[in-house]
Amino acid sequence: MPGEFEFIDWLRARQTPSARVPVPAGDDLAALRFEAGDGLILVGVDQILDGVHFDARLHAPERIGRKAMNRNLSDCAAMACLPTAATLSLALPRGLPIDWTKRLYEGIEAAGLAFDCPIIGGDTGVWDGPLAVTVSIIGRAGEEMGQTSAAKTAAKTIPPVRRSGAVAGDRVYVTGPLGGSILGRHLDFVPRVREARELVARHRISAMIDLSDGLSRDVAHLARESSVGIVLNAAAVPIHGDVARLNDNRAPLDHALHDGEDYELCFTGEGGIASAIEVGRVVAEPDVWIEFNGQRQPLTKGAFEHRL
Amino acid sequence: MPGEFEFIDWLRARQTPSARVPVPAGDDLAALRFEAGDGLILVGVDQILDGVHFDARLHAPERIGRKAMNRNLSDCAAMACLPTAATLSLALPRGLPIDWTKRLYEGIEAAGLAFDCPIIGGDTGVWDGPLAVTVSIIGRAGEEMGQTSAAKTAAKTIPPVRRSGAVAGDRVYVTGPLGGSILGRHLDFVPRVREARELVARHRISAMIDLSDGLSRDVAHLARESSVGIVLNAAAVPIHGDVARLNDNRAPLDHALHDGEDYELCFTGEGGIASAIEVGRVVAEPDVWIEFNGQRQPLTKGAFEHRL
Repeated sequence: MPGEFEFIDWLRARQTPSARVPVPAGDDLAALRFEAGDGLILVGVDQILDGVHFDARLHAPERIGRKAMNRNLSDCAAMACLPTAATLSLALPRGLPIDWTKRLYEGIEAAGLAFDCPIIGGDTGVWDGPLAVTVSIIGRAGEEMGQTSAAKTAAKTIPPVRRSGAVAGDRVYVTGPLGGSILGRHLDFVPRVREARELVARHRISAMIDLSDGLSRDVAHLARESSVGIVLNAAAVPIHGDVARLNDNRAPLDHALHDGEDYELCFTGEGGIASAIEVGRVVAEPDVWIEFNGQRQPLTKGAFEHRL
Repeated sequence: MPGEFEFIDWLRARQTPSARVPVPAGDDLAALRFEAGDGLILVGVDQILDGVHFDARLHAPERIGRKAMNRNLSDCAAMACLPTAATLSLALPRGLPIDWTKRLYEGIEAAGLAFDCPIIGGDTGVWDGPLAVTVSIIGRAGEEMGQTSAAKTAAKTIPPVRRSGAVAGDRVYVTGPLGGSILGRHLDFVPRVREARELVARHRISAMIDLSDGLSRDVAHLARESSVGIVLNAAAVPIHGDVARLNDNRAPLDHALHDGEDYELCFTGEGGIASAIEVGRVVAEPDVWIEFNGQRQPLTKGAFEHRL
């Protein structure tokens, strides 16, 4: 569709906060509150489409299924919320073998159960189009696994981590090396749900996002939503070993900055967080930059292209 | 996919009840309980696919959008639950005009807002496949609109109406005339959310479903889930005026029994409910029948085919 991003901006402007919807579209998940005093329920949806996010001719159905669920779990991680349950909608090409379809389902299911997130309902349709897998996820903010009931009640008041809380002076971190996910990690990543919960439990985390569009675009989302600027330190950006295996003519840093689908977390918060990799800092002036040996230049947002 | 129904049976057998999921897949919505003592959260998902549920070349985008939302609201009606919020996933064909897409969205949004059910999040993708529109809905059981806060709290304990509660001796009802929805009603129906809530408030309703697959198939769902039989009275089945306009060689009753997508409610409950149309009775022996002048014969389940 020409104007896809215009459409998304138009659509988001129509979804405004309210007492019932304290966090509308624009974050990784929306938050819903049924009544004053209730905890927040977080909801999200993420679809993967044949030819865009996977290739049904090349990829094993379990891997495709895993990706469908894990993208949603990664959205939960980005807000440090606990996944609780998922629904599944399958648009199946006529003629798709039933065994292949069962393996797809098993991949989705297993990925959810790894985070105690069962599939509780769904819709299955058969059509002449390609395979589309849509997972919707429901989570809850601030409820720790394994806590006593009293602690759970207290923890309910912990708000989800949004994209909008970064302030000048905060540091910027990522949870792992970046780039080259096209070699397979875009299907096989582990969503950083546990890491996110631990970070929030131990440190002041001010804003967070999962790296799906690529670091350059995702830090721009954080900067925009927080009305701040972000300066990345080129020497600190961790480059994944897969980048060397790509063996193309692009600079390794270019891959780490602009490739998508790393599904690591990128967050801002207090200094000195040893369990993540510090890659930059938050500044007051809105925009995004990258610094080479102290020389700051605008960070060109690599146009994220799904590369299948 | 060959074996679609085998796949769905296989899939449902994997989704079993638990403390967290008291109502798993198999009803119109699944029910989720975060903690003992909390109210139930109902969740569902329903997709509409180009060439199956609508034709993007023929139908106005507002009507397609309305159908996508209203099918989900009809699932809420079937359980007498209050819709609260929805998420939206759009798989958009490359080249779809942005204005057409906005009108699609406006149709979805307006249908939701008619029942105080805003769209709170979503996912938009562009691909080489046909248009797929997936709406996920979140509702709450037992919370009456317009009640005081104290009454709301009490009403939270009212359970959702399931498919499994019919008992021998109950009567079977539908909320309106059936058949011929292909002429346009399958796009333009009004989900029976208010009617469902009123019925449950005033009467003993034991099981309910919305008529999407056609009366013959949907009463079979009720009978199977309730482990009872249902006998329809042929003379009592209300035939929609659209059936006469179809002007084909099939008997009008055949359309009323087997056409799909009426989106009226079919429910079982006490006798004498004047606000609905009594069409049969629940018996102990499991199966479904239709009675002509007191002569009972098996009700052949018309294979529901989406007819676009």
